[in-house]
Amino acid sequence: MAFLKNVWYCAGFSHELDDGKFLGRKLVGEHVLMYRKEDGTAIAMSNICPHRFAPLSEGRRYGDNVSCPYHGLEFDATGQCTRNPNGDKGSSTDINPPKVARLKSYPFEERWGIMFIWMGKPEKADPSLIPDYSMTEERPGHKTVFGFHKLDAHYQLAVDNLLDRTHVQFLHPRLDQGDTFDEKFERKYSTEQTGDLIWDYHCELNAPKMPLVALLWPEAPDLMEYYFDVRWEAPANMLLDSGSVAPNTNREVGSHSPGANMVTPIDESSCYYFWNLCRDKNLDSPETDMGIQKGVGDTFANEDGRMVTLCQEMMEGETDLLSMKPLLLPSDEAAVRARRIVAKKLQAEADEEAAEKVALEAAE
Amino acid sequence: MAFLKNVWYCAGFSHELDDGKFLGRKLVGEHVLMYRKEDGTAIAMSNICPHRFAPLSEGRRYGDNVSCPYHGLEFDATGQCTRNPNGDKGSSTDINPPKVARLKSYPFEERWGIMFIWMGKPEKADPSLIPDYSMTEERPGHKTVFGFHKLDAHYQLAVDNLLDRTHVQFLHPRLDQGDTFDEKFERKYSTEQTGDLIWDYHCELNAPKMPLVALLWPEAPDLMEYYFDVRWEAPANMLLDSGSVAPNTNREVGSHSPGANMVTPIDESSCYYFWNLCRDKNLDSPETDMGIQKGVGDTFANEDGRMVTLCQEMMEGETDLLSMKPLLLPSDEAAVRARRIVAKKLQAEADEEAAEKVALEAAE
Amino acid sequence: MAFLKNVWYCAGFSHELDDGKFLGRKLVGEHVLMYRKEDGTAIAMSNICPHRFAPLSEGRRYGDNVSCPYHGLEFDATGQCTRNPNGDKGSSTDINPPKVARLKSYPFEERWGIMFIWMGKPEKADPSLIPDYSMTEERPGHKTVFGFHKLDAHYQLAVDNLLDRTHVQFLHPRLDQGDTFDEKFERKYSTEQTGDLIWDYHCELNAPKMPLVALLWPEAPDLMEYYFDVRWEAPANMLLDSGSVAPNTNREVGSHSPGANMVTPIDESSCYYFWNLCRDKNLDSPETDMGIQKGVGDTFANEDGRMVTLCQEMMEGETDLLSMKPLLLPSDEAAVRARRIVAKKLQAEADEEAAEKVALEAAE
Repeated sequence: MAFLKNVWYCAGFSHELDDGKFLGRKLVGEHVLMYRKEDGTAIAMSNICPHRFAPLSEGRRYGDNVSCPYHGLEFDATGQCTRNPNGDKGSSTDINPPKVARLKSYPFEERWGIMFIWMGKPEKADPSLIPDYSMTEERPGHKTVFGFHKLDAHYQLAVDNLLDRTHVQFLHPRLDQGDTFDEKFERKYSTEQTGDLIWDYHCELNAPKMPLVALLWPEAPDLMEYYFDVRWEAPANMLLDSGSVAPNTNREVGSHSPGANMVTPIDESSCYYFWNLCRDKNLDSPETDMGIQKGVGDTFANEDGRMVTLCQEMMEGETDLLSMKPLLLPSDEAAVRARRIVAKKLQAEADEEAAEKVALEAAE
Repeated sequence: MAFLKNVWYCAGFSHELDDGKFLGRKLVGEHVLMYRKEDGTAIAMSNICPHRFAPLSEGRRYGDNVSCPYHGLEFDATGQCTRNPNGDKGSSTDINPPKVARLKSYPFEERWGIMFIWMGKPEKADPSLIPDYSMTEERPGHKTVFGFHKLDAHYQLAVDNLLDRTHVQFLHPRLDQGDTFDEKFERKYSTEQTGDLIWDYHCELNAPKMPLVALLWPEAPDLMEYYFDVRWEAPANMLLDSGSVAPNTNREVGSHSPGANMVTPIDESSCYYFWNLCRDKNLDSPETDMGIQKGVGDTFANEDGRMVTLCQEMMEGETDLLSMKPLLLPSDEAAVRARRIVAKKLQAEADEEAAEKVALEAAE
Repeated sequence: MAFLKNVWYCAGFSHELDDGKFLGRKLVGEHVLMYRKEDGTAIAMSNICPHRFAPLSEGRRYGDNVSCPYHGLEFDATGQCTRNPNGDKGSSTDINPPKVARLKSYPFEERWGIMFIWMGKPEKADPSLIPDYSMTEERPGHKTVFGFHKLDAHYQLAVDNLLDRTHVQFLHPRLDQGDTFDEKFERKYSTEQTGDLIWDYHCELNAPKMPLVALLWPEAPDLMEYYFDVRWEAPANMLLDSGSVAPNTNREVGSHSPGANMVTPIDESSCYYFWNLCRDKNLDSPETDMGIQKGVGDTFANEDGRMVTLCQEMMEGETDLLSMKPLLLPSDEAAVRARRIVAKKLQAEADEEAAEKVALEAAE
């Protein structure tokens, strides 16, 4: 498995740790336990007890500590073992907690209701590198809905899907304008790369009112300008910045509904797709919340997710798309650029590791 | 996977392409799309879009063209890409269809309601090599029923099963005469090989009326001569030529119900079993059609299919029966001859390919 | 797969062969057929027909013989093929049964309602090596209940579980005393090894009455001495010798309920767990039988079995726990000793095999 390590991945949403719950999740090939301490801080550490490899997320919670579900070894929120209830033969008290037992602890940050985890070297974990999703935060005048899905496909196939607007009219007939267009309908798209940041811009002029737009902005006009801009940061953190405005008005007076779209590998052949959507109209409507939850959920599960999984199946075990020499289209520009940036960064991480190893050996 | 390529395999039945339907099926290790053009010709080509490997059989049909379900690339019935709806940025029209994009197209023939596909070199595809199943065609005085099953076993295990009549009394108690035989009951069988064609003859004298015979020929006498002759052509195309006659009469006055029995590999460990049965009595009886469909279907699924799958399971991943040095019985003669012919032909194909490669290199 | 061969494994329980039934079961990597002859002797032989590898346990029984479900080859209880119903072309009689066809036959012994199989060299099979479970036999004043489970984990993970009492309070809250203990509560344990035999002693003083004890001994006092001693013999045959007595009395006047606990590998990543429990109180109570059956069954399936399977999953394909360098605790002493004895015996079997090979080659 070749995954970037020294990056922030989405690990889930803040509300998943409500009520003191343990959340066990496999992320980027590692089993991770997440929970919120009594002071409110969320933490992440290994979910594997070093004794018999039991999943700690099945255990009990004592204050900020987790007790292994199998033999009761207790760990504090830094991952340090603090108690072995069977430490001394002939006693039920905790003598000799095994000090050597320390679980891997992960740099972990929460922002805007989203949890981010750093899988690489802790000393390199810089919170300022967390992608900016502040525009998706729920706040006065804005309402945010969250969801996630597990996908049986390499994470980059999901990124390809999200970095590409041209599949919408084929894969999502319900979301799209259908086969009949206004004669003035026009579609424009372009891709911009600045350093390792990609923006994929997509704009439709004189576009008909789609069902999703009708949900986000019931008062939208029948013909509108619709924009759908995607910002990508390596390896799989996207912002889907979409909205619609009446013709010949500016974006401030329309509907704007940015969404975080973050893909996190589970292993070589599966991944999580985490999303949110922050709307600025039609706020006090639980029906709209449900409609978005169900609409995006169903669309992803039955259309995108199904298609990406089918493609992975047709690839028969291969997970590196480019190694299969696919036909490249102009509309693939953003996705191909993203893959190239990831490949370059993977190489940089490998080089760095090799250099560190050489330095270490020289120092000995 | 070692499969014969330069042979005709059964790909399905003509009626499966009714109503303009797309049929996607994995055959001999390749994903194949089949459909019928508006002029009535059935065609087969790769089912994998070269762009993102989406299954084209999930797409939409425009005239004789198929449009990819993911991004709408359009292909004509020869496999040539003719349209990219997102070919030019800023436009929704089809500029620059990628001419290099051409799907593999397969020689494809229909005969007697059966579809045949050639997986090898197109220039070698000779329709005169298609096995003769004309006697199974529905025509005045004859009624044909069709069915197929998917089997989780190497295709040759299914061939072994079909080339062997001696399992019937053990595996198919409902089809067989049971444990009590008339004292004059007699069973004869023999195997004949002519070139690479095998005939396995099986005949029972003074045989009791089996339930299947009662269905095909309600007026059959209680004691009869029953014949069950199997013609085999490499690698897995069989004719089951069976029938029954009253004692001391000739075959013309009895019931004759030949059936095509064709096994097509899906991959190393699974296959399709396609069958038909053409009867010459009791024609206008939908109940009989259903009885055959269900009777043969249930027998195959619950008895042959189950047993072949169990044997494959006991073989624990091995798919080459002979490499496991099975006990060979006199009744295995036809099956062993068939395996030897397939092995010889596989070697010939490999030799030919090697020779062509040498010739090609010499020419350079 | 590295399993000890020259040892007795539990193959199941005597009552599983009632009514002349065939029992097919994979044990220590081999497919085994078991049945009881008409004279009452239980036998075990290969469950794989050498002809097409069909499972004989699906076949029919004729006296002491088994007839293959596929083509009717018949084998006697020693594994010798005695009849090929299709031996001679043109005849339905059994001419030329293939004398070379002989199934592997296993040394097989029954004791106290338990069946034991020897997977190694038959000449080494010494019944005196069968572990003593006589104390678990149903007899006047004693009632025995039996059960078994299939587990998706390496058999040694199940042994670890059974050789360790310290998980009870964490994994089995219903069986345990809970979190509140009497102030005089005391727990003692120790491990003794004599040759290759291990005894793990566990004793609780002033222990509260657990639900299982209440079932086995309804009149038990509220505070008691509870003992739970485990005898282990390589590779996975254990006796769980447990009981409870009133404080300051001796074991004869309390409740004693020894149980055989035998783990038999199926393959590298799955095993059977066979158990019985012989009680000496509350005998004529079918409700108690059911309660034990369900109580132990549910506990094992939902608690031990689930946890062992979860640990195996977290180990991601690795089946050798020690190779993963687990944290070792004082309470692991018995389990680690057991693993070391198995490793030593595996090496001895490998050495012996190598020496025999050398001797054989020298003799030639």
